[in-house]
Amino acid sequence: MEGKKGLKIVTIGGGSSYTPELIEGFIKRYGELPIRELWLVDIDRGKEKLEIVGNLAKRMVKKAGVPIDIHLTLNRKEALKDADFVTTQFRVGLLDARKKDEEIPLKYNVIGQETNGPGGLLKGLRTIPVILEICRDIEELCPNAWLINFTNPAGMVTEAILRHSSITKVVGLCNVPIGMKMKIAEMLGVEQSRVHVQFAGLNHMVFGLDVFLDGVSIKEKVLKEMGNPENAMTMKNIAGVAWDSDFLQALNAIPCGYHRYYYKTDEMLAEEIRASQEEGTRAEVVKELEKDLFELYKDENLSIKPPQLEKRGGAYYSDAACSLIHSIYTDKGDIQPVNTRNNGAIASIPYDSAVEVNCVITKDGPKPIAVGDLPVHVRGLVNSIKSFEITAAEAAVSGDYKKALLAMTINPLVPSDTIAKKILDEMLEAHRENLPQFFDSVEA
Amino acid sequence: MEGKKGLKIVTIGGGSSYTPELIEGFIKRYGELPIRELWLVDIDRGKEKLEIVGNLAKRMVKKAGVPIDIHLTLNRKEALKDADFVTTQFRVGLLDARKKDEEIPLKYNVIGQETNGPGGLLKGLRTIPVILEICRDIEELCPNAWLINFTNPAGMVTEAILRHSSITKVVGLCNVPIGMKMKIAEMLGVEQSRVHVQFAGLNHMVFGLDVFLDGVSIKEKVLKEMGNPENAMTMKNIAGVAWDSDFLQALNAIPCGYHRYYYKTDEMLAEEIRASQEEGTRAEVVKELEKDLFELYKDENLSIKPPQLEKRGGAYYSDAACSLIHSIYTDKGDIQPVNTRNNGAIASIPYDSAVEVNCVITKDGPKPIAVGDLPVHVRGLVNSIKSFEITAAEAAVSGDYKKALLAMTINPLVPSDTIAKKILDEMLEAHRENLPQFFDSVEA
Amino acid sequence: MEGKKGLKIVTIGGGSSYTPELIEGFIKRYGELPIRELWLVDIDRGKEKLEIVGNLAKRMVKKAGVPIDIHLTLNRKEALKDADFVTTQFRVGLLDARKKDEEIPLKYNVIGQETNGPGGLLKGLRTIPVILEICRDIEELCPNAWLINFTNPAGMVTEAILRHSSITKVVGLCNVPIGMKMKIAEMLGVEQSRVHVQFAGLNHMVFGLDVFLDGVSIKEKVLKEMGNPENAMTMKNIAGVAWDSDFLQALNAIPCGYHRYYYKTDEMLAEEIRASQEEGTRAEVVKELEKDLFELYKDENLSIKPPQLEKRGGAYYSDAACSLIHSIYTDKGDIQPVNTRNNGAIASIPYDSAVEVNCVITKDGPKPIAVGDLPVHVRGLVNSIKSFEITAAEAAVSGDYKKALLAMTINPLVPSDTIAKKILDEMLEAHRENLPQFFDSVEA
Amino acid sequence: MEGKKGLKIVTIGGGSSYTPELIEGFIKRYGELPIRELWLVDIDRGKEKLEIVGNLAKRMVKKAGVPIDIHLTLNRKEALKDADFVTTQFRVGLLDARKKDEEIPLKYNVIGQETNGPGGLLKGLRTIPVILEICRDIEELCPNAWLINFTNPAGMVTEAILRHSSITKVVGLCNVPIGMKMKIAEMLGVEQSRVHVQFAGLNHMVFGLDVFLDGVSIKEKVLKEMGNPENAMTMKNIAGVAWDSDFLQALNAIPCGYHRYYYKTDEMLAEEIRASQEEGTRAEVVKELEKDLFELYKDENLSIKPPQLEKRGGAYYSDAACSLIHSIYTDKGDIQPVNTRNNGAIASIPYDSAVEVNCVITKDGPKPIAVGDLPVHVRGLVNSIKSFEITAAEAAVSGDYKKALLAMTINPLVPSDTIAKKILDEMLEAHRENLPQFFDSVEA
Repeated sequence: MEGKKGLKIVTIGGGSSYTPELIEGFIKRYGELPIRELWLVDIDRGKEKLEIVGNLAKRMVKKAGVPIDIHLTLNRKEALKDADFVTTQFRVGLLDARKKDEEIPLKYNVIGQETNGPGGLLKGLRTIPVILEICRDIEELCPNAWLINFTNPAGMVTEAILRHSSITKVVGLCNVPIGMKMKIAEMLGVEQSRVHVQFAGLNHMVFGLDVFLDGVSIKEKVLKEMGNPENAMTMKNIAGVAWDSDFLQALNAIPCGYHRYYYKTDEMLAEEIRASQEEGTRAEVVKELEKDLFELYKDENLSIKPPQLEKRGGAYYSDAACSLIHSIYTDKGDIQPVNTRNNGAIASIPYDSAVEVNCVITKDGPKPIAVGDLPVHVRGLVNSIKSFEITAAEAAVSGDYKKALLAMTINPLVPSDTIAKKILDEMLEAHRENLPQFFDSVEA
Repeated sequence: MEGKKGLKIVTIGGGSSYTPELIEGFIKRYGELPIRELWLVDIDRGKEKLEIVGNLAKRMVKKAGVPIDIHLTLNRKEALKDADFVTTQFRVGLLDARKKDEEIPLKYNVIGQETNGPGGLLKGLRTIPVILEICRDIEELCPNAWLINFTNPAGMVTEAILRHSSITKVVGLCNVPIGMKMKIAEMLGVEQSRVHVQFAGLNHMVFGLDVFLDGVSIKEKVLKEMGNPENAMTMKNIAGVAWDSDFLQALNAIPCGYHRYYYKTDEMLAEEIRASQEEGTRAEVVKELEKDLFELYKDENLSIKPPQLEKRGGAYYSDAACSLIHSIYTDKGDIQPVNTRNNGAIASIPYDSAVEVNCVITKDGPKPIAVGDLPVHVRGLVNSIKSFEITAAEAAVSGDYKKALLAMTINPLVPSDTIAKKILDEMLEAHRENLPQFFDSVEA
Repeated sequence: MEGKKGLKIVTIGGGSSYTPELIEGFIKRYGELPIRELWLVDIDRGKEKLEIVGNLAKRMVKKAGVPIDIHLTLNRKEALKDADFVTTQFRVGLLDARKKDEEIPLKYNVIGQETNGPGGLLKGLRTIPVILEICRDIEELCPNAWLINFTNPAGMVTEAILRHSSITKVVGLCNVPIGMKMKIAEMLGVEQSRVHVQFAGLNHMVFGLDVFLDGVSIKEKVLKEMGNPENAMTMKNIAGVAWDSDFLQALNAIPCGYHRYYYKTDEMLAEEIRASQEEGTRAEVVKELEKDLFELYKDENLSIKPPQLEKRGGAYYSDAACSLIHSIYTDKGDIQPVNTRNNGAIASIPYDSAVEVNCVITKDGPKPIAVGDLPVHVRGLVNSIKSFEITAAEAAVSGDYKKALLAMTINPLVPSDTIAKKILDEMLEAHRENLPQFFDSVEA
Repeated sequence: MEGKKGLKIVTIGGGSSYTPELIEGFIKRYGELPIRELWLVDIDRGKEKLEIVGNLAKRMVKKAGVPIDIHLTLNRKEALKDADFVTTQFRVGLLDARKKDEEIPLKYNVIGQETNGPGGLLKGLRTIPVILEICRDIEELCPNAWLINFTNPAGMVTEAILRHSSITKVVGLCNVPIGMKMKIAEMLGVEQSRVHVQFAGLNHMVFGLDVFLDGVSIKEKVLKEMGNPENAMTMKNIAGVAWDSDFLQALNAIPCGYHRYYYKTDEMLAEEIRASQEEGTRAEVVKELEKDLFELYKDENLSIKPPQLEKRGGAYYSDAACSLIHSIYTDKGDIQPVNTRNNGAIASIPYDSAVEVNCVITKDGPKPIAVGDLPVHVRGLVNSIKSFEITAAEAAVSGDYKKALLAMTINPLVPSDTIAKKILDEMLEAHRENLPQFFDSVEA
């Protein structure tokens, strides 16, 4: 796989605040994952951050004493040439765009939800054309590379790549499953390694169909604990509104944090409105966090990942990526939940759609473990999000306004075609500069 | 099929205000559908209505000069003995129950929707145990009879019969498709017989996937017309809130009137609140209509179906039933949209679930015409309703409170598990007398 | 659909001995199927036959007094321009090729079977490239035309068109189902119109899953009668080896005549060897029949279809074609068994594969009626033939020798890869002139 | 899982000559697989062998110094009480029955094939009722036990248990996949642990869809090597008739040894006839081998598995069983090819059917890895064997003669219903004493 000796890894959106976690992950695994070159790529607008983060990265590898060459560049094509792995973690329009994704829907009493909600639609419309361009570059410059995508909305992006590019070596990655597993271990007071969760569903719509402690199912116990409002598992970026205990037991599967948007829509909306008034949107909170992080990163004396980074919602993302790359490279055969082509693993999802499901990770890629079908009572919601993702990807590729309206209307968080149109129109306008396919008359 | 000569038909809920339409339908078809006996069955509480309607029925057949014996009875078993066709059109708890189905959810700002919504759940919980008892009687007393169900929620009821009884000769019937076809013909100013609609979906969640005039697709034209607010097709019992024209074109399929509850939830809710304040719920409106109808029916000089009956939302229901019975009896091979076992006709719905789809009607029952799959953008919503129907049927059969809560929460009209619980608890209590499986400690 | 007034129909392979039946069919239906022009197209080598048949056709329409213009041409493109329907009934390599298809395998103790057997493979390899050329002409010259294919192997050809062309308006036609229905009616001594057979399977591998007389299943009775050696239904071109009565009852479905090749392989082989020694192959018999027919056709006084034509195995083919065209043109909505895209009608066959199944015939094409799944005990054989058809079509398109060997080896009539290779090599050589994709170095 | 401390394991058919391998396997793994008691169960007729093997087993554990209590019993129920694992390796009718399974079909020029062929049908008819009795005992006496079946025909037996018992904790085991992997490693001259094969199909009808060396596909190389007659991989009990190299490359998947029966039927038949004349049937050869083995086992000084055992065709069977039990008990999560419920792993096989496919082995059982679909060209044959297995299992359970005839006729090795009947009738008679369901009038 690797060119000379050691691997060439390319990180697109390398100026991200998450990068130090990635570096830490690579350093930690250097013994089994011999990286020769790591290229951090960013765009003009991100040049300053790239340099701050890149310099920290250089200090980190130096301190660790591993011979990884760190390259910083704004030239994506140069970076991709003969790469072995490409990771993507960029944000088209940066956090300002996320702010709009969250704020505009709220004006219409609709949750923005930047991945599976109206905000996610707009994020997809901005992101998918860029990721498909990257795919075309990969085909040309490093056709044997694996693309590890953790750019959100990761489910919709993976769907788009599977349907609208010729790339097949792609894996979508999310930190939600690992977060669920950690919370469960913590809740039970046991070591993580003893807990195994049978994950199946879609990105940010993944269920733990069963949970095992040392191989024995403890699902009932976990569901009972989760019904206890004190314990309610959640992610840092999702308000911890408590589950109804009877509902959880009837659900008979572990929901992820994002399920609250769909099973507790009114409560989450109220909480988002409150938070946006009192604290600003999540985007604004994150913006502050990032600012502080970059201040830290500038410190010439810092040569490790600062612990403050773990406060970001995306914690464990980069570690999950390193772990995935490690398992692919070493043909490890361990089980990881990733976004990949369904291939029959989940009965009610099309074979050629992306799902998030436990896979055996091999050098030949992730091999999904068949779960048969999802419980009948979750098939509807899961299919609603899959319908949304496919339709949104089509809108992103075609720049077709009506398709975008259709995607917005069928999103379960949006109450009507009328509201959908209002939100869409305002958001398209707000993101105009990053949506050439909708505004550039030559393209459209 | 028939016993001696001529058919024995049994109508359960025979005291319904719809019965005169059924009688008219049978009279009209007598030449090809030789009915020997028609048994109208009702329960004690409906005795008075049964007599009023039954006497009108007798006057109708007498005037028409057809030798159909009309029997009125409160003894269901006696009626069912050796029947050839059994039709069901009863309402457990009568219109008072419907009133609660509509009013209680509205208190929580949730649409009641008496078929696929929260009201439909409670209606199902009341109705399914009764219909399954009827199924057991049919197995015993007339195992070769066809059960033609038009008791709502017809989709959920057909699902429950397919899954929880051993009856296979069952057809669920709805007047929505015929109504859509009539409206389209009217909109285009052409005769109905020239219009053919390719129906597929679920009960009250059926789409016209294509529309043909003299065999040539006119879907685009129809969608354009429907986007014109002046033309917006609707049913008498559903507020005619206008569709967004762009959305309709992107939808690329003809929605039924009930789709407004899901694609225009906020507008329909506002309309329901307004109407309930100004006009009372639909149940109350219907109650008034029914009262007037029964006054008319009492008139000894009346011996035809009074034209006022057509104002009821259920218009054409009984005619559809007569037409279906006629086609089964004569092995006609015509195409009718009915609720039947999917059997692969719609790809994303399980083989053994009920769907509403065009079928060839034969003496051996309806044979669904394969449509491949529904458009990707409607699969989510359709599966949500199917998840709801299956879960609701399980709750109805088991009397399991948690299952009922699960069904209520996953209904797309219900915003959260918290609200679901409040609505469910109040409704279970309100319908306590008709829900023995939830309250009778021996059963539960 | 039609251009000016009346339809333009094109028959490729117009010089076939079957053509008079087609003409008769069109004359008979002229009232509802107003044909303006009928173009009979053939190739150079068939010019003489084309003229003989064409002149008979002209005499026939003249005598019948219908204003159909008969055009005879060797220029396919001229003929196709603006056609409404195109029928194909040609034979690449003529009967001499069929003779080889039947004789060469017999040398290796293998049944030739010119449709689903080794002979069918070679016939497909010769025919598919030609039919795909015709498809390209249709796309260019008459993109709205329906292609009605009754060139054998009709299943494999339809599969190839669905997978390897962009034509979707194609129907494959076979006379086996109509023949089965006629035989059953005859066996029971009732009128054909009272019998309805639920056909499902593949071309020449079609089963009657149920049989109805006046709408009531009589499958058991028919299977019992068929087990009686005196009654054994068969086609003129398939030896009537008797079914084992116990086997038939366990099969619980009506086999077609061609099933004998698979369920009675050794007996059919013995019979073919005997016949080829005593009577020559079927190809030789047919050659004689055809010679006699053309002698008859030359008679200037003949202006009707001569009754002798019915002795040919393909009886009712052309009438079935006329009936299909009639139903499409008039949007009739009757039920006919044809070869079309499965679309979910048969569960264990891919959605995008050709099946032979009862369809509702509309102006928008055939709509297959869902049968759920085939009985478990026939799924294996049916899938074996489908595997063979798909692999053979791939070999025909690619000219890949190994693919052709694979198709030959997996055919259920062929005992081993070793024998497959011997047969294939000898047959490829024998048909060299009609297999440019395997021999022309530029193509391959 | 275990009762007191350590596991209780029960081996039905404990007097088998394979048992020493099993004992060796348990001894080897004792550190991680703490077995308290091993019960060897046999029937009256096998008492002598049970004692010989049982005593050897006792000497083996003694020598190894592991505290496993070996119990010998003819009382199955006593043995099963509270078992943790039950393994089955019995042979109803012993080797004499196998002799008939192989000899009788040969009289009719048909390969007996004791697993997927006519012999396998009769073996299934004898075995399935016994295994279903064992299942009923397990339900009653040790409902939490895992049943590890390696009684042949293992595919048909697993299918029968899944469909006709309430046991879900069952795994069917075969040594064919491990044998294929070993041969490939040997052929390439590399260590087994570096080779990974993607197995999918049915028992004795399993394909290597891909082969990896250190995670990199080497399928092409392996297929090329296999096409070299000198290298042709095979099993000890299957004649090594050489594959055609072009066919193998077109097949594009690694066949197992048993595929020769289907892709090289005539050659294998010739070989079986030759061998039966020159060497006796395989049953007779095995009988001699067994006799010799038992002579060895009697030797009081023998306290290890004698190396001669590896000459038996079933080599590695018992080791595979130990390895599977070990992985279940320790929740190991490694990948093993076993027979289990498909659950969507292979697209063209029903969800509820048994398949042989790579699974992740956990304490909760084997979790099949989704392969999408089998290559189109093998779907037919695989489905033919699955049709055969399901039909045979139904015949075994019902004792229905016609079903048995149907199973025999649809087997790909059997040329006709006529021959099927002859073979079946003679075999039923020959095995009469072990087929009460076909002969006992009370049962039938």
